[in-house]
Amino acid sequence: MSPSPFSVGLLGHGTVGAAFAKLLQERSEAVGALTGRTPAVCGVLTTSSGSFDEILQSADLVVELIGGIEPARQYALDAMRAGKHVVTANKQLLCEHGEELFAAAADNGVQLRFEAAVAGVVPVVRVLLESLAGAHVERIHGIVNGTTNFILSEMEGGASYADALAEAQRQGIAEADPSADVTGRDAAAKMAILARLAFGTPVVLSDVHYEGIEHLQPDDLQYARELGLGLKLVGTAERLAGGISVRVHPAFLYGGHPLAAVSGPFNAVTLEAEAITEITMSGPGAGGRQTASAVLGDLVSVIRGDSAQPQPTQSLPFVSDISSPFYLHMEVADRPRVLAAVTGLLGERGISIKSVSQRGLGENARLLMVTHPVSESRLREAMKLIGELEFVGSEPRAIRVIEEEFL
Amino acid sequence: MSPSPFSVGLLGHGTVGAAFAKLLQERSEAVGALTGRTPAVCGVLTTSSGSFDEILQSADLVVELIGGIEPARQYALDAMRAGKHVVTANKQLLCEHGEELFAAAADNGVQLRFEAAVAGVVPVVRVLLESLAGAHVERIHGIVNGTTNFILSEMEGGASYADALAEAQRQGIAEADPSADVTGRDAAAKMAILARLAFGTPVVLSDVHYEGIEHLQPDDLQYARELGLGLKLVGTAERLAGGISVRVHPAFLYGGHPLAAVSGPFNAVTLEAEAITEITMSGPGAGGRQTASAVLGDLVSVIRGDSAQPQPTQSLPFVSDISSPFYLHMEVADRPRVLAAVTGLLGERGISIKSVSQRGLGENARLLMVTHPVSESRLREAMKLIGELEFVGSEPRAIRVIEEEFL
Repeated sequence: MSPSPFSVGLLGHGTVGAAFAKLLQERSEAVGALTGRTPAVCGVLTTSSGSFDEILQSADLVVELIGGIEPARQYALDAMRAGKHVVTANKQLLCEHGEELFAAAADNGVQLRFEAAVAGVVPVVRVLLESLAGAHVERIHGIVNGTTNFILSEMEGGASYADALAEAQRQGIAEADPSADVTGRDAAAKMAILARLAFGTPVVLSDVHYEGIEHLQPDDLQYARELGLGLKLVGTAERLAGGISVRVHPAFLYGGHPLAAVSGPFNAVTLEAEAITEITMSGPGAGGRQTASAVLGDLVSVIRGDSAQPQPTQSLPFVSDISSPFYLHMEVADRPRVLAAVTGLLGERGISIKSVSQRGLGENARLLMVTHPVSESRLREAMKLIGELEFVGSEPRAIRVIEEEFL
Repeated sequence: MSPSPFSVGLLGHGTVGAAFAKLLQERSEAVGALTGRTPAVCGVLTTSSGSFDEILQSADLVVELIGGIEPARQYALDAMRAGKHVVTANKQLLCEHGEELFAAAADNGVQLRFEAAVAGVVPVVRVLLESLAGAHVERIHGIVNGTTNFILSEMEGGASYADALAEAQRQGIAEADPSADVTGRDAAAKMAILARLAFGTPVVLSDVHYEGIEHLQPDDLQYARELGLGLKLVGTAERLAGGISVRVHPAFLYGGHPLAAVSGPFNAVTLEAEAITEITMSGPGAGGRQTASAVLGDLVSVIRGDSAQPQPTQSLPFVSDISSPFYLHMEVADRPRVLAAVTGLLGERGISIKSVSQRGLGENARLLMVTHPVSESRLREAMKLIGELEFVGSEPRAIRVIEEEFL
């Protein structure tokens, strides 16, 4: 029996949209042989051409690659209400309006798939929704923004933040306005989606605490290297005693951590659950053809009628004051006296020190410490007092440390 | 609406079977909330108790954790012919009788799932069958045997093969009879399954060329470390000009290769396709609870009605004479004359040398070389002649090198 056609309406024809149209053409025959349906684009909507209503009429499935909230949200809802499946790469839409979209898919008996919205070709959405559907995921660590990981790799090689950013822009890895990437907002949106899937509780962008990489100093990266640590922009979603935490911030990773070796514009995600210990997945974080490939995987699953959909089963509170070890960096004019004052001040607040080292001499000395785990609020309070100490130069810096400790 | 029951017949109650029964009990309520069906074991078949026919009567799905070919094969076939889904962790069964089983699943409209048969909790079967169903996978590299990877990690730390094996046995990582692991046969079975899924062509164990780790010498591992290479037992499945190759052998990996950093009893797989570049996945390679977790993921997919099944679409020839760079190790009594003779001999056969180094002096000198890519047959021919050279001591050794070159 020869395959029957499967009509794909394509919304958006930018880098990813054009790459998807090309990839679909290349692979349609193979998909037909595999599934019995040969997919082909039945209409393309761009800013200047095409009609959404006409595309909707003829499509079995709509691929949304416009990006942003509106009109992407309305198109996706209209498509599902018309009984059409939707595949999207739109992280912003998912993390802001996920519940509305998931409900629309369920109500209309259609599929909504979005592998390409998180971590490029790394199939973390599918693995969370399918392989680990029966598991109780405890924690996710992710490098989910390739642009910042590229910039940090460059800085690890000695470049300043400004030079590294310029190089990323030159190579097309960073956008002209890099703020969504470098502030951690893009990674935060992706972590919100992953947390939603892992914990079965609604998570939107404003639930995610995020900090970016703009304020990192080259010497932090240099010390990281000397200490055998990697400095990464890490997204974390985890269950804690009082609820869950979803956050993105720069963090030092010990050399043995699966994410420590991830360099350049790559993404990687570590999923931890008691029954699996941990799974790590990595791959290119972006690229039109790579993203198109993730969209194609979703399309094939829709044709086959696979049905894994996220279901909220609970509403969990967010925990905001998280404990972790911290790396502290202080510029000090007189090392011995400052060391005594700082350790005394930390000790009084129950913050214990794991290691201390110094760099430089006299007026240019730097004191580097790593603490044992301490709550962020307590650490910040102590840092404020340390900053007010005599002999301590410019504002002391603190960066979280992630230890290699699996379930 | 409260979930309806879903009956699971369990064949086998060894380490994995017992772990699966326990995990299912822990997670059944959560699976019920997610899928609308609450799974529970309706009967267990062990060597001393239970009736397959009775279990089959009451089961919606049969989990086969007996291992080996018979009676596992007959049970799986009988179950599918009776309209029951089958989930198995049986790599041997899949790689020897995969086509018969896949056909039985298709003919009877039931699902056959086997994530746990390859690479423990690493969801490579699902990613190949689903995420990459529309992709054209070109190459797979895998560390798919945790036992040998543990032994090699120990040897990298200076242990002899015998001591490393004994330590693995002491820790329960290697079996009393380790031959299936250390000869590469276990890894070969897993690579046969992955090749079958990736290339859509039947592959059985006898199609796979495999070599083990029993003959590796501690100094090979020491040189590897000095040269910045990792020595791993690597499975490869790849498309070549004349067909495909599926093989398992020790190989030196350059430090930047995603598999180079995988140490201890872990599994990791790198999937390469032009459209995705590459995806790497890693996690624990074994463990009863981890394997049970992979079985549970399959069970959830069956309940949901997901349907991804492998389909053969072509029959591809196997290519046997593969080109790669080689590391060569020679014990030489008189270095300068041997170097001239060896390089002359290699040069005459068109084998070019990328690097040469020496270790030791006089009678105990060792000559280490890395060649540019050369076909195995040509290299073996040259090695035979080198072994016959005057001044060359015990048989020269050759180990393949895998360069970091992605599509």
